[in-house]
Amino acid sequence: MSTQETNEHDQKGSYVHKGTSFDRDMNYIPTRITKDGEDGYPVEADRYRLVASRACPWANRTIIVRRLLGLEGAISMGIAGPTHDKRSWTFDLDEGGKEPVLGIERLQEAYFKRIPDYPRGITVPAIVDTRDGAVVTNDFGQITLDMGSQWTEFQREGAPDLYPEHLRAEIDELNDWMLHRINNGVYKTGFAGSQEAYEKEYHLLWEALDELEERLSTRRYLMGPSITEADVRLFPTLVRFDPVYHGHFKANRQTLATMPNLWNYLKDLFQTPGFGDTIDFQHIKEHYYVVHTDINPTQIVPLGPDMSHIMEPHDRDRFETDTWGPGGTAPEPPLASEVVDPAHTPLHVTGR
Amino acid sequence: MSTQETNEHDQKGSYVHKGTSFDRDMNYIPTRITKDGEDGYPVEADRYRLVASRACPWANRTIIVRRLLGLEGAISMGIAGPTHDKRSWTFDLDEGGKEPVLGIERLQEAYFKRIPDYPRGITVPAIVDTRDGAVVTNDFGQITLDMGSQWTEFQREGAPDLYPEHLRAEIDELNDWMLHRINNGVYKTGFAGSQEAYEKEYHLLWEALDELEERLSTRRYLMGPSITEADVRLFPTLVRFDPVYHGHFKANRQTLATMPNLWNYLKDLFQTPGFGDTIDFQHIKEHYYVVHTDINPTQIVPLGPDMSHIMEPHDRDRFETDTWGPGGTAPEPPLASEVVDPAHTPLHVTGR
Repeated sequence: MSTQETNEHDQKGSYVHKGTSFDRDMNYIPTRITKDGEDGYPVEADRYRLVASRACPWANRTIIVRRLLGLEGAISMGIAGPTHDKRSWTFDLDEGGKEPVLGIERLQEAYFKRIPDYPRGITVPAIVDTRDGAVVTNDFGQITLDMGSQWTEFQREGAPDLYPEHLRAEIDELNDWMLHRINNGVYKTGFAGSQEAYEKEYHLLWEALDELEERLSTRRYLMGPSITEADVRLFPTLVRFDPVYHGHFKANRQTLATMPNLWNYLKDLFQTPGFGDTIDFQHIKEHYYVVHTDINPTQIVPLGPDMSHIMEPHDRDRFETDTWGPGGTAPEPPLASEVVDPAHTPLHVTGR
Repeated sequence: MSTQETNEHDQKGSYVHKGTSFDRDMNYIPTRITKDGEDGYPVEADRYRLVASRACPWANRTIIVRRLLGLEGAISMGIAGPTHDKRSWTFDLDEGGKEPVLGIERLQEAYFKRIPDYPRGITVPAIVDTRDGAVVTNDFGQITLDMGSQWTEFQREGAPDLYPEHLRAEIDELNDWMLHRINNGVYKTGFAGSQEAYEKEYHLLWEALDELEERLSTRRYLMGPSITEADVRLFPTLVRFDPVYHGHFKANRQTLATMPNLWNYLKDLFQTPGFGDTIDFQHIKEHYYVVHTDINPTQIVPLGPDMSHIMEPHDRDRFETDTWGPGGTAPEPPLASEVVDPAHTPLHVTGR
């Protein structure tokens, strides 16, 4: 899944359809990269390239998990620009507008190499096989799980188990609920095609946020003392909430910063290696405010909000804590080539 | 002056003009209603009708001053609906869409009675002579001053002096600065026609708000221990800030609720008779979000923000206080016919 909005907009480039609710296309290329290579794509270092955008919340998860598991050395990463046109995400951040490893200007080219005339949205995250430059998969949900279960050989020492066996049923249930009510709920609120649809989605969203606020009053992370896949799923939505969803998507009952548990939880994760260091607030704002011209036709990108307070102390240390789980440790700092532009983040990592 | 946007939009109904800054037409009908009637309009009870909209910040000031001075019995009031079309404010809140006293459907008719083919914006506030149904003046700045200086005969006992002789020079200077930097500053930010113009206005606006935040750290009201014209000028902008200017106009460095002095000052005034009881948050939001289709083409009106916290206790009692000045008292509750719909305000006035 992705915010790649060729998925979400129609042929005219519209995201909002009068009188309707927003419906996300959830069909992805289901090919998996596995240890046994049963789909024809075995796990192998230096072969696959993760194409992401720092703007996109769905891609953000893959960037986080790759960081947490220390897979930077095994799976390289290309970053598409924050905006895209009706056809595709583009590589306008790269020199000459060309992805340096894949040699393409538009991610669409890699999709077409796999499936000529690929009819669905050109979405990030996508994993591309550098041997033939074709997309292997864009199935966001499976990508992070497979990074955990299939890429074990290449994971760093101390890589956390984000999807522990005994918690899987509960994580799956929570993730499914969050997907519809939170991760996609903000889109359903923002892309509502009628006042009635908007109000319905707004209430569903805030009811869900209230539930999470309550859940986080008794534990440090969503599943307890340790970070799991569930936190990786929630964080990208929360971190975009005040900068984008509050104003642009009219999810504005209050700012997230006024929800004590959610806000402190967000600060906590943001300040945790592997989370905040993946966030580029400028990319995030540019993406939403420039691409969705039927919501923001002026394409002016707000200067606010000032997010520096996300670096202030949090109060989550009061809960039982085992952040990385049994045998787990914090990840190393990001690769020098992958450090977010300091002008785009309040994260001032000292001593790195 | 008014938010009547025939003043602000062009013939196509656009508020934002690509590549330009927003420029407000500041020419008004300068006729005055005075004690000596030198312009042909002497002060007289039951003759003039104030036409306002609860949505409009400029009209809001006249509603407040009329309340504070107790002129409800002398100057009647008509309320236009929150939205309007390209031609005029309309009376769609009234039965049959007809203003009950003036018998017109569009405020434009009263302007044309005064000046056929009146070429400027059809703005509120406007004072209409009920004898011939023609607009006398729409000069927002003079209207409130004249309510203070010319209508003394009809003012209530205990009416405050909002424009004391010895403070006039300072009030004028402050009001002029606030007009350009705050009251109109939010519009210049929201209607900017380029990223560059937006960023310039955003910084000017926040710099000015920071100055007011500082000023209000040493005194209860803008001019000291008593309410003056300056507070009447500032309040309508501040009360619209979080509901509209923050998101819709992208004046979003932070919410006003996170500015301790400005927020407590706003709470204080909102809870003061004559201020909060003039505010209809539903009208305010409907106006901006429905009328400015080039900023919000979906015309969806946000449900948030929850403004109930504006009724929480404030901390302004710590300053020297003489709210109504020498001999002044608080105004009576609003006329029953002028009470704001309880569903549109967090103001639950008990014991009234």
